[in-house]
Amino acid sequence: MRSDPLKVVQKYGGSSVATPEKMAVVAGRVAKRAKDAQVIVVISAMGDTTDDLIAIAKKVNPRPDPREMDKLMASGEQISSALLTMALHNLGCDAVSFTGAQAGIITENIATKARIKKIDTKRLRQELNKGRVVVVAGFQGITDNNIWADITTLGRGGSDTTAVAIAAALNTPEDPCVCEIFTDVEGVYTCDPRIEPNAKKLDTISYEEMLEMATQGAKVMHNRAVELGWVYNVEILVAHSQKECPGTVIKKEDKNMELRNPVKGIAHDTDVAKITLVAVPDRPGIASRLFKALTDGKISVDVIVQNMSARGKTDISFSVAEDDSDKAMEIIESIKADIGAEDVILTKDVAKISIVGSGMESQPGYAASMFAALAEKDINILAITTSEIRITCLIKEDRIMDAVRVLHKTFELDA
Amino acid sequence: MRSDPLKVVQKYGGSSVATPEKMAVVAGRVAKRAKDAQVIVVISAMGDTTDDLIAIAKKVNPRPDPREMDKLMASGEQISSALLTMALHNLGCDAVSFTGAQAGIITENIATKARIKKIDTKRLRQELNKGRVVVVAGFQGITDNNIWADITTLGRGGSDTTAVAIAAALNTPEDPCVCEIFTDVEGVYTCDPRIEPNAKKLDTISYEEMLEMATQGAKVMHNRAVELGWVYNVEILVAHSQKECPGTVIKKEDKNMELRNPVKGIAHDTDVAKITLVAVPDRPGIASRLFKALTDGKISVDVIVQNMSARGKTDISFSVAEDDSDKAMEIIESIKADIGAEDVILTKDVAKISIVGSGMESQPGYAASMFAALAEKDINILAITTSEIRITCLIKEDRIMDAVRVLHKTFELDA
Repeated sequence: MRSDPLKVVQKYGGSSVATPEKMAVVAGRVAKRAKDAQVIVVISAMGDTTDDLIAIAKKVNPRPDPREMDKLMASGEQISSALLTMALHNLGCDAVSFTGAQAGIITENIATKARIKKIDTKRLRQELNKGRVVVVAGFQGITDNNIWADITTLGRGGSDTTAVAIAAALNTPEDPCVCEIFTDVEGVYTCDPRIEPNAKKLDTISYEEMLEMATQGAKVMHNRAVELGWVYNVEILVAHSQKECPGTVIKKEDKNMELRNPVKGIAHDTDVAKITLVAVPDRPGIASRLFKALTDGKISVDVIVQNMSARGKTDISFSVAEDDSDKAMEIIESIKADIGAEDVILTKDVAKISIVGSGMESQPGYAASMFAALAEKDINILAITTSEIRITCLIKEDRIMDAVRVLHKTFELDA
Repeated sequence: MRSDPLKVVQKYGGSSVATPEKMAVVAGRVAKRAKDAQVIVVISAMGDTTDDLIAIAKKVNPRPDPREMDKLMASGEQISSALLTMALHNLGCDAVSFTGAQAGIITENIATKARIKKIDTKRLRQELNKGRVVVVAGFQGITDNNIWADITTLGRGGSDTTAVAIAAALNTPEDPCVCEIFTDVEGVYTCDPRIEPNAKKLDTISYEEMLEMATQGAKVMHNRAVELGWVYNVEILVAHSQKECPGTVIKKEDKNMELRNPVKGIAHDTDVAKITLVAVPDRPGIASRLFKALTDGKISVDVIVQNMSARGKTDISFSVAEDDSDKAMEIIESIKADIGAEDVILTKDVAKISIVGSGMESQPGYAASMFAALAEKDINILAITTSEIRITCLIKEDRIMDAVRVLHKTFELDA
């Protein structure tokens, strides 16, 4: 139940402000919102700025120093925040731009992926109380509360994190601050609308469900920002940056709605590869050595399946992002003899499909229904993994569209 | 007498670092210098960055807010300082980049042309003592010693000012810090070498003479930085950024050199327009009203000449920069009736020529020689103005090359 809040943090992505014309559109939306709310805008770097800066850095030094990269990258948001503020002035809207430092965003001293330690909102509140819109450079912070401190960036999904963190810092039960993430999708859907035209946009989704949907490939916003919203109980609206239509609100689970569909949505991800180690000796420490080596190589492993042992040997399968798969194979080749695997098989044409919903938690039978629906369409299941509110299957990539459609229908998400 | 100093501030302009290739050349020079000195590098924005940022700002808002412009512009030096630092790392040279804030450059809170109040060199000294080259973003500062303070820029010649100011902050009589300004000229010449091939590069020039040469159009470095060097007695070397050849050292007058040529150089400037107010009533307060109006309109007036009065009327002539002349005419038209001038005449095809030298101060006859030399070439003098170490004439613009050559010869500057 959203009424007009007094405080709102709006976040706009880089594509929304890629040109002076698009920037004027965003400024118009912000100025309109500022008529009945205190508005903080968090902005990403314009269009391809970040990629351009990375490209030139690589020309200067093939392995650029992370601290210098942070300073370089942070300039992108410094530029876009100043320009959006000028665009707001052009509409007669009083506004002021902030760097991460000016917004008081103090982070760890870890370049390229710093986490926020605290936000000192001193000047932010001052400017809001003057009736100004504050435009904050997203994705960045400063390592300490003094002018000599280093500029850091927050890593992937950084501007979303800035937005939710600022909302959290300003949020109180009596005087809530909501967060609005404007992006190039209209909200969170029951499944990918490009695959299933009957996909429905969800009005609300819980933090927990959103995390599972995002992990499983619904690229709406970064998990880190959703988690932050969950911890600080910040309502997050996800909506389209150019279209005027209601989006999806991510908020606390509403346990009273008994009649809701226990399955909230279908998530899928085709950026998956499966690696199988064949006939590994079945003794303690093998899995640990394997996954430690992958972690050291910064490879995230997702679904893991170990088959039953036969004659003291077992097969271990796991999935990784397709981009990481060649590097993962290199690592495994280097320890293959050590582990004693007879063979290693990489399969790139696999995909993940999941059903997500916190209603499934207390009710049995959803896994069975899912497997039956896939079997009916003759879709072979290569591996299975579950969480309390999610069931995931690994299948062949060329069957992913059929799988999304049949599950969407089976769980009546088009109803 | 320059021996190897322990501390040196090097400044490189935007054209020296316009591409990754040029940046590598600069990095090589810095790394070489860092072998036997503590080096601070002050860097301008790459190539056309500043112009590009201004262009996009004007698209977003035809009259951009000065505070936002400062933040926008400062990003240019933030980018180049991070990149040059990466280029130094690429050569195995330990280096760290600083924003204006990190360099401790505290300025007035006046956007686009802030003056430096003080430099807190705390972290600068720390990093130098670690054996690191410190690369400082030129042209910028911060309004106060806290993270919420605003980013400012120093206006024209800002990076030169940053360099000299840092040298001044680190300079002590026992442990001097020199400043090296690398630019696209090889040093300060007796006159423009494009006009007179016999022009000689000066080994040294005094602060005072340099100020007069610069004001009179020798575009080597900004006066503001020269003045700062004078006040804090910082030796400033001006040299070419790409060529390996000695430049010109700007330093205290060496009074012992009795045999030196009293005329040090010829300066000229063709970016001049002359405005004459015809038949103004000759009564107190008229000149004051005129020049107050021009000052309010931010027009700098240079040479001023008031002719003898006849029948209670007088003619007032003055020169302004050619770019300012149309605006100056507008201002004068608006007060013309009030002042009682019969007519106002704008002449754009004029130029200034000066002889400069602190040796002229105590010796007469230089003005007479100058006027005679011009007369001999049939060059008409439109107006004359002098300082203690300079004599300036206004002449027709199409005679400027002849004037430079004849004066260079007359005062034996090619000897």
